[in-house]
Amino acid sequence: MAKSNRVYNSYEMAQFQFDQIAAQLDLDAGSRELLREPLREYSFSIPVRMDDGSTKVFRGFRVQHNDARGPSKGGIRFHPQETMDTVRALAMWMTWKCAVVDIPLGGGKGGVICDPHNLTLREQEQICRGWVRQIARNVGPLQDVPAPDVMTTPQHMLWMLDEYEVIHGAKLPGFITGKPVGMGGSLGRKEATGYGVIFTVREALKELGIRADSTTASVQGFGNVSQFAVELYNQIGGTVTCVSSWDQHDQTSYAFRKPEGVDLEELLGVTDRFGGI
Amino acid sequence: MAKSNRVYNSYEMAQFQFDQIAAQLDLDAGSRELLREPLREYSFSIPVRMDDGSTKVFRGFRVQHNDARGPSKGGIRFHPQETMDTVRALAMWMTWKCAVVDIPLGGGKGGVICDPHNLTLREQEQICRGWVRQIARNVGPLQDVPAPDVMTTPQHMLWMLDEYEVIHGAKLPGFITGKPVGMGGSLGRKEATGYGVIFTVREALKELGIRADSTTASVQGFGNVSQFAVELYNQIGGTVTCVSSWDQHDQTSYAFRKPEGVDLEELLGVTDRFGGI
Amino acid sequence: MAKSNRVYNSYEMAQFQFDQIAAQLDLDAGSRELLREPLREYSFSIPVRMDDGSTKVFRGFRVQHNDARGPSKGGIRFHPQETMDTVRALAMWMTWKCAVVDIPLGGGKGGVICDPHNLTLREQEQICRGWVRQIARNVGPLQDVPAPDVMTTPQHMLWMLDEYEVIHGAKLPGFITGKPVGMGGSLGRKEATGYGVIFTVREALKELGIRADSTTASVQGFGNVSQFAVELYNQIGGTVTCVSSWDQHDQTSYAFRKPEGVDLEELLGVTDRFGGI
Amino acid sequence: MAKSNRVYNSYEMAQFQFDQIAAQLDLDAGSRELLREPLREYSFSIPVRMDDGSTKVFRGFRVQHNDARGPSKGGIRFHPQETMDTVRALAMWMTWKCAVVDIPLGGGKGGVICDPHNLTLREQEQICRGWVRQIARNVGPLQDVPAPDVMTTPQHMLWMLDEYEVIHGAKLPGFITGKPVGMGGSLGRKEATGYGVIFTVREALKELGIRADSTTASVQGFGNVSQFAVELYNQIGGTVTCVSSWDQHDQTSYAFRKPEGVDLEELLGVTDRFGGI
Amino acid sequence: MAKSNRVYNSYEMAQFQFDQIAAQLDLDAGSRELLREPLREYSFSIPVRMDDGSTKVFRGFRVQHNDARGPSKGGIRFHPQETMDTVRALAMWMTWKCAVVDIPLGGGKGGVICDPHNLTLREQEQICRGWVRQIARNVGPLQDVPAPDVMTTPQHMLWMLDEYEVIHGAKLPGFITGKPVGMGGSLGRKEATGYGVIFTVREALKELGIRADSTTASVQGFGNVSQFAVELYNQIGGTVTCVSSWDQHDQTSYAFRKPEGVDLEELLGVTDRFGGI
Amino acid sequence: MAKSNRVYNSYEMAQFQFDQIAAQLDLDAGSRELLREPLREYSFSIPVRMDDGSTKVFRGFRVQHNDARGPSKGGIRFHPQETMDTVRALAMWMTWKCAVVDIPLGGGKGGVICDPHNLTLREQEQICRGWVRQIARNVGPLQDVPAPDVMTTPQHMLWMLDEYEVIHGAKLPGFITGKPVGMGGSLGRKEATGYGVIFTVREALKELGIRADSTTASVQGFGNVSQFAVELYNQIGGTVTCVSSWDQHDQTSYAFRKPEGVDLEELLGVTDRFGGI
Repeated sequence: MAKSNRVYNSYEMAQFQFDQIAAQLDLDAGSRELLREPLREYSFSIPVRMDDGSTKVFRGFRVQHNDARGPSKGGIRFHPQETMDTVRALAMWMTWKCAVVDIPLGGGKGGVICDPHNLTLREQEQICRGWVRQIARNVGPLQDVPAPDVMTTPQHMLWMLDEYEVIHGAKLPGFITGKPVGMGGSLGRKEATGYGVIFTVREALKELGIRADSTTASVQGFGNVSQFAVELYNQIGGTVTCVSSWDQHDQTSYAFRKPEGVDLEELLGVTDRFGGI
Repeated sequence: MAKSNRVYNSYEMAQFQFDQIAAQLDLDAGSRELLREPLREYSFSIPVRMDDGSTKVFRGFRVQHNDARGPSKGGIRFHPQETMDTVRALAMWMTWKCAVVDIPLGGGKGGVICDPHNLTLREQEQICRGWVRQIARNVGPLQDVPAPDVMTTPQHMLWMLDEYEVIHGAKLPGFITGKPVGMGGSLGRKEATGYGVIFTVREALKELGIRADSTTASVQGFGNVSQFAVELYNQIGGTVTCVSSWDQHDQTSYAFRKPEGVDLEELLGVTDRFGGI
Repeated sequence: MAKSNRVYNSYEMAQFQFDQIAAQLDLDAGSRELLREPLREYSFSIPVRMDDGSTKVFRGFRVQHNDARGPSKGGIRFHPQETMDTVRALAMWMTWKCAVVDIPLGGGKGGVICDPHNLTLREQEQICRGWVRQIARNVGPLQDVPAPDVMTTPQHMLWMLDEYEVIHGAKLPGFITGKPVGMGGSLGRKEATGYGVIFTVREALKELGIRADSTTASVQGFGNVSQFAVELYNQIGGTVTCVSSWDQHDQTSYAFRKPEGVDLEELLGVTDRFGGI
Repeated sequence: MAKSNRVYNSYEMAQFQFDQIAAQLDLDAGSRELLREPLREYSFSIPVRMDDGSTKVFRGFRVQHNDARGPSKGGIRFHPQETMDTVRALAMWMTWKCAVVDIPLGGGKGGVICDPHNLTLREQEQICRGWVRQIARNVGPLQDVPAPDVMTTPQHMLWMLDEYEVIHGAKLPGFITGKPVGMGGSLGRKEATGYGVIFTVREALKELGIRADSTTASVQGFGNVSQFAVELYNQIGGTVTCVSSWDQHDQTSYAFRKPEGVDLEELLGVTDRFGGI
Repeated sequence: MAKSNRVYNSYEMAQFQFDQIAAQLDLDAGSRELLREPLREYSFSIPVRMDDGSTKVFRGFRVQHNDARGPSKGGIRFHPQETMDTVRALAMWMTWKCAVVDIPLGGGKGGVICDPHNLTLREQEQICRGWVRQIARNVGPLQDVPAPDVMTTPQHMLWMLDEYEVIHGAKLPGFITGKPVGMGGSLGRKEATGYGVIFTVREALKELGIRADSTTASVQGFGNVSQFAVELYNQIGGTVTCVSSWDQHDQTSYAFRKPEGVDLEELLGVTDRFGGI
Repeated sequence: MAKSNRVYNSYEMAQFQFDQIAAQLDLDAGSRELLREPLREYSFSIPVRMDDGSTKVFRGFRVQHNDARGPSKGGIRFHPQETMDTVRALAMWMTWKCAVVDIPLGGGKGGVICDPHNLTLREQEQICRGWVRQIARNVGPLQDVPAPDVMTTPQHMLWMLDEYEVIHGAKLPGFITGKPVGMGGSLGRKEATGYGVIFTVREALKELGIRADSTTASVQGFGNVSQFAVELYNQIGGTVTCVSSWDQHDQTSYAFRKPEGVDLEELLGVTDRFGGI
């Protein structure tokens, strides 16, 4: 793979990583075949009556890469360039992540091709409910548990949960994680991914014998993950010298650079709720 | 599309056909978006313990193109070159076919990437049961009703039905059509597709004012459809001058040509149960 | 009851009728207690996001008066003055009606307090779907089968059916009757109630030895029932001299009188789809 | 409301309380409409074969006022003057009570119009089982969890649980609370309501700077709640000077008065199991 | 078997018959093993509160001998000497009977060890309901369909159906056959078994060239089967010279003999509803 | 019983024990009838395609002796001499065992007539899956929870769990206990039964005032229970002087005797995985 000039998509990369590790582990052929591809993939239409009266059809996905260790677990992404291959790769990585930290969960991921920047709340609610209506018998607390992810929020989860509970005729808060804290969500959920990145960095630096306050870092994106990662990285002494983001209007990404360290508070003051600065 | 030299796959062709008709009908944009793509697609792994003790993983598909007019209906194909796009196209065509003859059913199609020529009966049984085990909550008499198709047989349907009935804990023969006649299958099922082709030809000839006994025809393939089409075509007076088939060993197709008309009985005598001559 | 000046509501009237007949039949006390009151009553909130962005909560009802002879059967009424007692009376009458003509169905009726004249289609759709969402486990082909009634239409039934099918994950057209003919509805359904009235009148006149063409009639209301009753009554020779209706703006009822007979075609030309002239 | 001489029933009082608080909170109109009335109400017949061979039909109720915060929770009352409005009021108060102490449960309440004083145990068992049989799909650990209340006992709960478990084919002790301690009931359940009253009094007195041993109290009723309230109130130093009760034979209430304090032990000695002295 | 003096029970006889036929058919060993023994057997306790206040526990059975051809079908017997082996034999014979006349049903049979002569109707009702409560998930229109049999009546079926419908929350008259005609039962059901016996006799006589009016017959028992058999046998000209019955008080059987032919009407006048004369 | 020379089977012994204790407790007649026999018994065929291509039918059992205190609990035995009566006795003892230590579980037991010594792993897997397929609606986390027992292993449990999860379409590890520790099994499970025996012995010795190191013991069998019992007994000071086992080839049992104490390590070295030495 290294020698080719072709650009690999994330699914090809995930499979390439798997093949390498499988070779190192001398994994048997049957297990390799089973783990190289997702166990189950769902792709479906979500028709939405738009606020202007027209009907638009969105494409939804869910991939359950593997559930041998427990119900699948993974977020639902809203992104205008979402592809099945991206979802496949991320679902596969969820399997490894849950296994590595020995949580009794498998790996899943989902998504919808849409850009919430351009959708009213009522339209977003319909996408959330429509996603659940197409897949309500294949997800759930004992099957596959979604969560917020790129451009999806606790409010989205609440709409999904409500639709799921109406369909199943019972209160089932275990269907979805990342609910608002006041509605059964977990404390610390918002900070978890960003802090987790830095906990890993901190342990790696310890292992390597490097002092955190001698390090600098660049972060890619400035959404929910990045903001809390920067916060904790600053606390352990690190300096963030560069933050990249994405301009919704130009559809291009760009970067802020400040060799003496960016000011987190200042950046947060000019950032929208999807992480655009 | 007409000007390009690119080869279009069957799904692109089905969508191209749809777009043309939709334009003629002046169909509204929302309905076009909804009908251009399948409502729901399932793709999944089917692990099989092979007779030699190894484990092999097969890929199974099911597409429910549309179910507004009733449960989806469509066959399950076993083919080594099966692709999701082929299944998508055939599911879409099933929607149109059921609608045109006003049957209260929608359009579906399924498949497995495998070559039954190279599989023992026990291995084929496991593929059939494995297909049902991955999708048992999304198919059924009131949801989506499979049937035999390319290289699948009444015996395959019976294995699928048995697995479905065990999972649901009830006798549900309406889950699948194309069962053996003695086990609840319909009389005339085997002949139906081939005869249907010739009924259509007969009516078209009448419409065009052409006498059937003045016509000759070439048929592509010599499986279940073709054999009965030739039989009925001969009965209405037509002459089949060419039959193509597929050589399993060479993996190539070839054709028998006989300007005075091929002899159906003779050909049947040298044909295997998958239609290879 | 005859001597009192008090106005009785329809439920009290239905119970009074029942008591009289029960006394004639010398019905045992247990059966009287059971049949005097509905077996099951449901009352629930239907929250709707209105087109102006506000939220309004409508009240929905369903009464299953008795199901000893089969699943309950009866319409769903949309009316601004709907009350539980009206629904109770009509459900009870459905039990008697189905029993008298020996159909294996029991008696039910439902309703929502709302006036479709003042609601957009999108708001009406939400009321229909909301009604089903609150009661989806207590109605169905084997439990209780709704139908159109006062100010509800085949389109309303279709929204209800779609919501029911999504919740139960299957195509279940038997859940509801009065669907559009092209979507599984019965032929002749629209004319059935009005024609039925006149079939009864015709048989009664025969019994009494009165010629139909010597009779005149006044009809109350001019909706779906009345229009077809007038049509058939005219055909058997009768003359309709008076038609009452209801003025939506004034919220009052009024009557058209024409001693030589009203002109059906003319009246239909000035009537809206809810029966207001 | 204050100026009228009309007697308000408990539901009107609950709504009046709600309206006042909603005004103080400046609650939006949609939420007010939703919370002023119960989300779902069930009313149904319970036919019972009496020990004398006759059949009597009892009326059962269940109200689920709101379940946004979790499954509904609330007792089942047996009372000869039970009304739907009483049940509505008590269900609404359950919603506020659970919310105020931040338990993830909503508010419900149920009842049957009957007087257990006049019913044999076998007849009571049939009422309990009959109540469950009419509503078994709308209550449960994830939907709505009943409990003992006025004139219902742990034995009643056990009959209800058994009927519920037979219908659902599984052991589901979470369906109902207030079971006998040896059959999965909670320790301290019997004392909980009465002690809770006095814990509240104790905290209120602290807040107001009043010493408990300087206070006297009158208690209304002498059932399960009152008995334990008197016990704990005595322990914190208070003196109960008056206890009211209800005479089953005269159907009137009356009061014991003793300015120096009633003797709890003495009163308990002359009290029956429904709280009649 | 022929040479032994040992008395064989009905199950051993059924297996002996099967083994002989299987040998004639040269049936493969796997099918023989499968068909020699019932597919599924259920045995369970039915506790009943007797009218005298005591609790008695009855033993209930259901055997599903085979369901390859469709849902199991077969009656429920109430008999004080009922045994699992009798039920096994009768279930096996049901499989053969349904197969021989090519009905898409399998073979089942059930029973309860009890004597309805000594039980009040209320106690019998409890046995019927208790039987259903123990097995409600393993029987049904798509699984196994009971019917009346020895000492069970249409009234028993109705109690069983009611219990089944309450448990499943739906009207499911297809669960059981032999209901009263006015409650969904089939016309001619009562006469069917007895007439069937004589239809078979009539055809056999034709085959053998014997005139029916030259024959005499003895009938064993005088219940539902026998009474209609005698009626039809008389109609085709035969003479019944002997009828046996069973004396409930003495627990012995005895026989009426009349060489010139018994008088059916006379016998019916002195017969109770369980067939005792 | 004591005076007879007849050999009693385990079920008769269990009933005899029960009768004696019931008499001591002066238990009422109804409870005695209910507890003397199992609440529910299941017996069914398990057809298996053997590795040599033939079909063999195995007999499976499950007995749920009582579930008043919670879901039934008990192992599944694989044994060539398994009988329904053995399973009945063991299920009854499970009820007493769970009750005595006050665990909220009832008593169950199951089995299959087979000898895993003579079956390949693939054949054993089919028996495990076939057992679940015949009884999947009558067992489960809320109904009846199996476990390993004589000649069944954590691997068997995993096959059973997988089949159960496919049938129910959800991850349900609570269906079965004794899974491998890495797949959700409990730590200490393997040692639990053997250690439990010695904990009981230790407490009994204390009660009797006997020092453990002054005692010797003989153990019957050398499987999972015995091995850990010997280990712990040695640790508390006891000496095992005799171990019996079973010779698979001779089908006879025999005993090792060593007055100075057998060497556990040595014996383990010559023992196979089913406990044969």
